[in-house]
Amino acid sequence: MVMRVFGDRNSGNCLKVAYTADRLGVPYEWIDVDMTKGETQTSAFLVMNAAGQVPVVVLDDGRPLAQSNAIIRYLARGSALLPADAYEQAKVDELLFWEQYSHEPYVAVCRYHMAYLGRSAAERDAEKVARGEKAIDFLERALTGRTWLVGDHMSVADIALLAYTRLAPEGGFDLSARLAVRHWIARCEAELGLAPLARAA
Amino acid sequence: MVMRVFGDRNSGNCLKVAYTADRLGVPYEWIDVDMTKGETQTSAFLVMNAAGQVPVVVLDDGRPLAQSNAIIRYLARGSALLPADAYEQAKVDELLFWEQYSHEPYVAVCRYHMAYLGRSAAERDAEKVARGEKAIDFLERALTGRTWLVGDHMSVADIALLAYTRLAPEGGFDLSARLAVRHWIARCEAELGLAPLARAA
Repeated sequence: MVMRVFGDRNSGNCLKVAYTADRLGVPYEWIDVDMTKGETQTSAFLVMNAAGQVPVVVLDDGRPLAQSNAIIRYLARGSALLPADAYEQAKVDELLFWEQYSHEPYVAVCRYHMAYLGRSAAERDAEKVARGEKAIDFLERALTGRTWLVGDHMSVADIALLAYTRLAPEGGFDLSARLAVRHWIARCEAELGLAPLARAA
Repeated sequence: MVMRVFGDRNSGNCLKVAYTADRLGVPYEWIDVDMTKGETQTSAFLVMNAAGQVPVVVLDDGRPLAQSNAIIRYLARGSALLPADAYEQAKVDELLFWEQYSHEPYVAVCRYHMAYLGRSAAERDAEKVARGEKAIDFLERALTGRTWLVGDHMSVADIALLAYTRLAPEGGFDLSARLAVRHWIARCEAELGLAPLARAA
């Protein structure tokens, strides 16, 4: 049985799984799930992920796994996307946890408020904007003089951070002066075979 | 050189590192860091963790590592606290990411508002309270009929969730009716040699 990915193509968290599986050549069936229609709260869905969130995958052996960063880390084990060295792997984990705590709740949520709820940039939550700007500044410093976030190869840390950083302009974040971030986005997109997005500033 | 842990003894995220290292018998030196005095924003601290957060460890080989869940996962590799099976390890990761995204920002932050900022339970942020209650309900369901969160042994998933769940009453969350959670807290405390906390309801 081929792996099934339950997700939303507009969600960066879900796209991480597609980017990783595509890169690794892992075959999968994509099943669209519409959170706004309650499709993540059905009893059938909650059996796969009691937290009622996408993405969730059902592996080829039938076992479910949730949480985008847990999924991509699992898929990447033994591949070049996850360093073999224990310390480098821990540095990847450090960024995966940072992404979920200090980046996604601000950069992705501001985008959600604009792209889904129709707010203007000026109507965004001021604290979320400030923390999102801080997160992107952190990335700009981390990437200055570096090609990839950890080690000498693209890893799941790059994929996890790419997902919402490339969509940040849709949340009102201006990347034009963040050159290290912009070049890194372009490198990731080239590696993953993604068409560059039209950049709303 | 012995591992150094830079942390705050009142922070559940920092205590995770102590619980794990103590359980594993990993020797360490604890260095108190007071965030409220700007000690996480000095240039010396930011070299260890550019995100300016505790906990951070400097390993016995001198290399730094940040993010509580990345640290305890690294320390636990090869031990009974991290399952050897790849899928069980991924289920541990699923809970570690869930903890940082759906539990800590609500359960720990409500506690911060009460224990650090002196707010009353009634003055807590209503949305954070609701999400914190939901997170504890999730744990109650996950632990009903189970001894540990993943597999048949205590893992770093239990340690990560224990840290702020046992402190939840300090954030105004009432555990008295959550029997599965309470019994699991007692089991974890017994395993880790922790004195039970006086329970503020």
